[in-house]
Amino acid sequence: MMGSGGSVSVRSPATVANMVCGFDVLGFAVNDPYDEMHIRFTDEAGIIIINEDEYNLPTEPELNVAGAALLAMLEELNEPIGFELRICKHIKPGSGVGSSAASAAGAVVAANRLLNDRFTKEDLVRFAMNGEKVASGVKHADNIAPCIYGGVTLIRSIFPLDIIELTAPPLYVTIVHPQIEVRTADARGILKQQVLLKDAIRQWGNIGGLVAGLLKSDYELIGRSLEDVLIEPVRSILIPGFDMIKQQSKEAGALGGGISGSGPSIFMLSKDESTAKLVEKEMHHIYEQLGLEHHTYVTTINQTGVKFIK
Amino acid sequence: MMGSGGSVSVRSPATVANMVCGFDVLGFAVNDPYDEMHIRFTDEAGIIIINEDEYNLPTEPELNVAGAALLAMLEELNEPIGFELRICKHIKPGSGVGSSAASAAGAVVAANRLLNDRFTKEDLVRFAMNGEKVASGVKHADNIAPCIYGGVTLIRSIFPLDIIELTAPPLYVTIVHPQIEVRTADARGILKQQVLLKDAIRQWGNIGGLVAGLLKSDYELIGRSLEDVLIEPVRSILIPGFDMIKQQSKEAGALGGGISGSGPSIFMLSKDESTAKLVEKEMHHIYEQLGLEHHTYVTTINQTGVKFIK
Repeated sequence: MMGSGGSVSVRSPATVANMVCGFDVLGFAVNDPYDEMHIRFTDEAGIIIINEDEYNLPTEPELNVAGAALLAMLEELNEPIGFELRICKHIKPGSGVGSSAASAAGAVVAANRLLNDRFTKEDLVRFAMNGEKVASGVKHADNIAPCIYGGVTLIRSIFPLDIIELTAPPLYVTIVHPQIEVRTADARGILKQQVLLKDAIRQWGNIGGLVAGLLKSDYELIGRSLEDVLIEPVRSILIPGFDMIKQQSKEAGALGGGISGSGPSIFMLSKDESTAKLVEKEMHHIYEQLGLEHHTYVTTINQTGVKFIK
Repeated sequence: MMGSGGSVSVRSPATVANMVCGFDVLGFAVNDPYDEMHIRFTDEAGIIIINEDEYNLPTEPELNVAGAALLAMLEELNEPIGFELRICKHIKPGSGVGSSAASAAGAVVAANRLLNDRFTKEDLVRFAMNGEKVASGVKHADNIAPCIYGGVTLIRSIFPLDIIELTAPPLYVTIVHPQIEVRTADARGILKQQVLLKDAIRQWGNIGGLVAGLLKSDYELIGRSLEDVLIEPVRSILIPGFDMIKQQSKEAGALGGGISGSGPSIFMLSKDESTAKLVEKEMHHIYEQLGLEHHTYVTTINQTGVKFIK
């Protein structure tokens, strides 16, 4: 057995997928909120999941996103290894900020440390994508990749996997999570399978602009490129107050923003903290007027991804 | 009248639009081939076009791409100014390397110098797009912008115009122009107006990858991103030997490439000159076997755009 004793604890961050114009290809990690996870070897082969939060997620490994990710890793290892994983989630499932990705990515990063970092980051993304499949039926990496790599990532291709790390200038992120439920499967289901070529062209102008804006630290260009003519007009209908929040956030000085992942959370990027807090205030105000319960976060881009803690 | 005497001469470069995955948004200028143009004020208001080449292009200003671009400029000036423009084209019309853009862009850049650079580069792109409209019926900027700015450009948006200059590492460009005619209007006509969302997603992964590869000077990433699942499969049917040229160019070491603009020219990018020349040899070989007349160029990216000459 591998079993040196010891255990590994990690913080696994929330992530914002799509980044407005980069549906299924762009995403970034944030410093708040995050899940906490603790893993150790067990004497028996197999996986034990212990939930230490209020969410009543399944503990059968194949039904649990972290469990499914660890199972994929064990399958590739092909050794009689056992893990006990304790999960304390702070990222609410279904909030649209990569709750399932945080569980799946945190689990495999932590397990890999127990295994003396035997696998590459790309391997870990592959394993963790099995958790996404449990959560939403689709293997996607736009939350998993930034969760593991940190910063902003581009999934150039998913088969074969090709992850590009993009440097970004300092950015403040304001997130509001209205307490309504938008199932990822529903949010995918309402998308049209065909798009107009002219809309696709506009979208790839914006993606090119956003990637260039990030790499050139050009805040104005980042702001102009945060435009989505394809997905947002359809999905934003599921999110009460979306248009108002976007408009007033921009009036308060935000560079831009939109739906986080498939929603219902909304994110806005700002150049400085005071603007990000002003944006938070606008979000509060709008959802108070609508009588909608909500949580907000003012945070920054997480540059390291899953972090080891004592 | 403005009329200081003197005249201005320019070299206006060929350009490669689309850059495989960036249909209608990406383009770059090359150092060879180029058109030569000479402009001077005349005493009478209006535009005189004199062709000094073999192509028998129209000399009525409103039917000539350079003339149409100058007319747009004069309209905005709203002064009784006259230009005489002598054009010696070396870029064959219809070759797919921005022949019309070179005429239109060269004319307005030269005229602007006579006017003591009264207009910005962005203004000049706007004027020159009127020439593209004469040539193909559509105002597009993916050849005009790199012709005027030099280097690689991204058209993030055309209305309003938003041009992003992208730095690129040294790249060698091999171009082959098979002597067949592909009308831009035909090449546009065969495109589907709707595309599959999943193909669009793959395309924007590649655009993001190409922009990142250029800005990060990552040759491998540039190569992997030179993939087009939408336009190339349709348009390449119009170009004899396309698949063979692409495959054998890559086997000879090219990073990748594809159709230049709407064709029929094909371009390939290489990291060094010896590879670019090897690619040229392969192109020659294939078209000789097919018995197809062709011209080739081995050149580099033109970093300055339209250049003033003595």
